[in-house]
Amino acid sequence: MPEHDHSTTPATPVTIIGLGAMGTALADAFLAAGHPTTVWNRSPGRVEALVARGARRANSAADAVAAGPLVIACVLDYPALHEILDASVTEALRGRTLVNLTNGIPGQARATADWAREHGIEYLDGGIMAIPPTVATPGAFFLYSGPDEVLDAHRATLEVLGEVHHLGTDPGLAALQDLALLTGMYGMFAGILQAFALVDSEGIPTKSFAPMLRRWLTDMAISVDLFAQRIDADDHDTGVMNTLAMQTTGVANLAQAGREQGVDVELLAPLYALMQRRVADGHGQGDVAGLFELIRRPRVAG
Amino acid sequence: MPEHDHSTTPATPVTIIGLGAMGTALADAFLAAGHPTTVWNRSPGRVEALVARGARRANSAADAVAAGPLVIACVLDYPALHEILDASVTEALRGRTLVNLTNGIPGQARATADWAREHGIEYLDGGIMAIPPTVATPGAFFLYSGPDEVLDAHRATLEVLGEVHHLGTDPGLAALQDLALLTGMYGMFAGILQAFALVDSEGIPTKSFAPMLRRWLTDMAISVDLFAQRIDADDHDTGVMNTLAMQTTGVANLAQAGREQGVDVELLAPLYALMQRRVADGHGQGDVAGLFELIRRPRVAG
Ligand SMILES: NC(=O)c1ccc[n+]([C@@H]2O[C@H](COP(=O)([O-])OP(=O)(O)OC[C@H]3O[C@@H](n4cnc5c(N)ncnc54)[C@H](OP(=O)(O)O)[C@@H]3O)[C@@H](O)[C@H]2O)c1
Ligand SMILES: NC(=O)c1ccc[n+]([C@@H]2O[C@H](COP(=O)([O-])OP(=O)(O)OC[C@H]3O[C@@H](n4cnc5c(N)ncnc54)[C@H](OP(=O)(O)O)[C@@H]3O)[C@@H](O)[C@H]2O)c1
Repeated sequence: MPEHDHSTTPATPVTIIGLGAMGTALADAFLAAGHPTTVWNRSPGRVEALVARGARRANSAADAVAAGPLVIACVLDYPALHEILDASVTEALRGRTLVNLTNGIPGQARATADWAREHGIEYLDGGIMAIPPTVATPGAFFLYSGPDEVLDAHRATLEVLGEVHHLGTDPGLAALQDLALLTGMYGMFAGILQAFALVDSEGIPTKSFAPMLRRWLTDMAISVDLFAQRIDADDHDTGVMNTLAMQTTGVANLAQAGREQGVDVELLAPLYALMQRRVADGHGQGDVAGLFELIRRPRVAG
Repeated sequence: MPEHDHSTTPATPVTIIGLGAMGTALADAFLAAGHPTTVWNRSPGRVEALVARGARRANSAADAVAAGPLVIACVLDYPALHEILDASVTEALRGRTLVNLTNGIPGQARATADWAREHGIEYLDGGIMAIPPTVATPGAFFLYSGPDEVLDAHRATLEVLGEVHHLGTDPGLAALQDLALLTGMYGMFAGILQAFALVDSEGIPTKSFAPMLRRWLTDMAISVDLFAQRIDADDHDTGVMNTLAMQTTGVANLAQAGREQGVDVELLAPLYALMQRRVADGHGQGDVAGLFELIRRPRVAG
């Protein structure tokens, strides 16, 4: 990657708080892009390798924060973050920008934004849609929520990590959509594990089956759009190309195959139960996207 | 599509048994490719539209089967298929090839292959990795298992429907891998539904969120290969880039977000329970692919 030889502006100094698998990948991305990068981690052992690759060591979290205008935090969860943000760190953050890429729920993001406002800290909440090896590659995208002017001031620096998606000013929006994307991924994980267990039960190596499964899941990701169209149109019963009745029969085959193959196929049991419930409700000729009606937050009567 | 003007060989006559959403798509694909196509369905109403598009009507299933060398069946399930295959149909099938694209379990496929052998019927079992609108498009692929020479004799005709994947001579292989792919898809469905319910709870239209979810799931389909490598290497505890402990924390956030947003996040509860069990087993610093060890068919001690 060119080290900012395209510009005379020196790269913004960045501080990374938290050097787990992800924080380390973030720090490495900034180092590779030529940003002066200061790092801090609760357990000092994780700092050494980054210092060897050019990062600056800080003696305390407060010192790390004081090293520049932009602080990126990426630790296990919000309780861990708030343990780090003691009085001295909070004071050191005043007038700087904290971008929090720690996974959490919307309420935690909003409470942290309130805390930041009280202490004169500019705050963005964010979510990382990448895994460590894809940080700073074209595959990576990052969700942010918070004030436009704060995002705009640091957009170029944040783009080092991956595509910047600003979801709005409400600080809870990134956490919400991050969690929604994660739940989509965990559903896929459950399906992948169950699929591998089934083929493994007949001695087929997962490796030889994997390309077909990957292709099928990539193809079937189109279901996201098909489901969204049906949900937004609020029509689950006309023009159905794959009826819930047919799919429920397929799923009964799956359950039976699992029993016969000695594989636990309970991972998707709640989905199957939902399918049966929706068929019993009279929607057997309807679509599978109609299951949404059984799990969504109930609409408040107008 | 060119109607076989590239060859002087007339296109093989094809019979389709079962004109649900999928059987209709199969028949239309053969009509479009210029194959004389005879159709039969239990309820005669579904035949009319296909006859209007050029298909030949048969007065009975036995007549339909007698119309040519290649019969493709696609009905709800194996019990439905065997209801159709009464004595007269079985007799009419003698010396012909039956390709059964009905969803089922490996045991049903093997039993049907045995039945076919007893009656002098060539038999292929198959699975359809497509939805009706993608049949005969580059996205479609079909799984087949059964004798090489039967597959080879009809390969060109079957390629009209989509890519031909011959998985082996054991007739149960297509059903097994079809079900495994389907379980992968149902996992994805569960995740998509849960993701939409979460964003909907804050009034975000599924349509505006869908492109991001589709992209994320497409990107994360790489997990298929990552999991397969770890499973085949039988190593779940070294070089982990996203620990189960970290992911279990994320999943606890998900559950809490669901509760706070009034959304039922129980669809993936068995996966979360499995994650907690594996962490309790001492694999918190291990990978998520290690969950496979908890659901696979137990290895028989050597
Ligand atoms: N890895 C991924 O693929 C991935 C992808 C997207 C998002 N994320 C998110 O990124 C964040 C970090 O994940 P990770 O994979 O880097 O996790 P990790 O490797 O387990 O590292 C956890 C980090 O949190 C710190 N920490 C934990 N408890 C703490 C406490 N009480 N006080 C101070 N520091 C504490 C750890 O410090 P010590 O070293 O001192 O324990 C370490 O720096 C999480 O919110 C995760 O959801 C990760
Ligand atoms: N649709 C898809 O997206 C899709 C994708 C891949 C695989 N498949 C598989 O393709 C097969 C057919 O699915 P489909 O979507 O076409 O289902 P469908 O639209 O519900 O049609 C079901 C078909 O089965 C027939 N049938 C049901 N019970 C019968 C019985 N007892 N005797 C005779 N015929 C009977 C129906 O005849 P009537 O018209 O007389 O009821 C109809 O032709 C299933 O095994 C399914 O798993 C479907």
